[in-house]
Amino acid sequence: MHRTRVRIVQDALDANNTIARANRSDFDRHAVTVLNLMSAPGAGKTTLLERALAAPLQAGTRVGVLEGDVQGSLDADRLASLHIPVTQLNTGNGFGGECHLDANMVRSAIDQLPLGEIDLLVIENIGNLVCPAEFRVGEDARAMVCSVTEGEDKPLKYPLMFRACELVLINKIDLLPHLDFDLEKLIYNLDAVNPRAQRILTSARTGEGVPQLRSWLAELSDRRVATAAAG
Amino acid sequence: MHRTRVRIVQDALDANNTIARANRSDFDRHAVTVLNLMSAPGAGKTTLLERALAAPLQAGTRVGVLEGDVQGSLDADRLASLHIPVTQLNTGNGFGGECHLDANMVRSAIDQLPLGEIDLLVIENIGNLVCPAEFRVGEDARAMVCSVTEGEDKPLKYPLMFRACELVLINKIDLLPHLDFDLEKLIYNLDAVNPRAQRILTSARTGEGVPQLRSWLAELSDRRVATAAAG
Repeated sequence: MHRTRVRIVQDALDANNTIARANRSDFDRHAVTVLNLMSAPGAGKTTLLERALAAPLQAGTRVGVLEGDVQGSLDADRLASLHIPVTQLNTGNGFGGECHLDANMVRSAIDQLPLGEIDLLVIENIGNLVCPAEFRVGEDARAMVCSVTEGEDKPLKYPLMFRACELVLINKIDLLPHLDFDLEKLIYNLDAVNPRAQRILTSARTGEGVPQLRSWLAELSDRRVATAAAG
Repeated sequence: MHRTRVRIVQDALDANNTIARANRSDFDRHAVTVLNLMSAPGAGKTTLLERALAAPLQAGTRVGVLEGDVQGSLDADRLASLHIPVTQLNTGNGFGGECHLDANMVRSAIDQLPLGEIDLLVIENIGNLVCPAEFRVGEDARAMVCSVTEGEDKPLKYPLMFRACELVLINKIDLLPHLDFDLEKLIYNLDAVNPRAQRILTSARTGEGVPQLRSWLAELSDRRVATAAAG
């Protein structure tokens, strides 16, 4: 990468972080915890959210979703049936659209978010294992969904994404009997790039791991309350 | 998208196209046909290539591969066992790496490509359904792999990618009995964005569709020969 390009990228990330802090300040003022949820296309983010949010979370945590898509509102339409607030954010105004959410895009949607009525905002990012990991949007935590159909090598091929997340949801495990997939090898590769990441084995189809995900989401929201009480 | 941003994107694409034409001119001089092969992460590009290139192609078409990855050479190492020339191109020099190949990256690898010894160059792009479709690299044709595990909605969510390709390989069809997946719905959605795209149903695991892919690759190479003879 040329030096000029490195500088341009660095400037863009600095500008992004400034706006991310402004977003964070807005979220803080409303005591809303924010999760940035990422994955490759079709790994199962929306279906997992559908399952996890089908019933109210523990301790009455109220959830809203900001749905990022290049185009359309297919995922938002699916989640809207859960009777939780869902806000659509499209990135497709460019030629092929943006391949990630950045802080400014999230900022442009903040006025539409019902921050006074929710405790936890889940931002469903664009399906992509590269750029979404580079841009903070003002979130408290980052999590990703990794489908077992994608192969065991993904942590090694997209290390920044796997390093950026504190939770990795290993999804579609109902398909394991039908795949040439070595779960231990995936875990080994994940350990190599991010040994501290928490892991939950999930199947949006059978519901396996969904209670653990629900608990994790409720605890994430509690984390802010605990921090505030200690402060 | 702001007007300034649109202009910057347009300038970048114009610059890219200029370099893509220079690449194309080099490929033409050596009579090498070039395929830009794209997909989401883990859709099965490398495994399909392993199967398709395990034996020499029809009519003695000699194949080389340019392997694009953010980091590492896992895929190139797999393909190298096929005894065809494989060149690695990494995009990971930036923070999280580039999420696509562009004409300049391919240009930087051209001196390492054995253009005098091959008839067909397959460029395996970074796993991503957004940006790779925006950047021409000097290729004759574009194809993509779409795994049935990714869901039926992908043509509607990533329309530029599906529109950019003349061939869509619908892969992992051995998993169909185990998925809540409606193949007709995927075809319907593909028809909605690109009715002219050729489709081949494939399973890298069982080998289904691989002979058709091999024929398509050989015919792609012949296309150039036919064009040259007519010209």
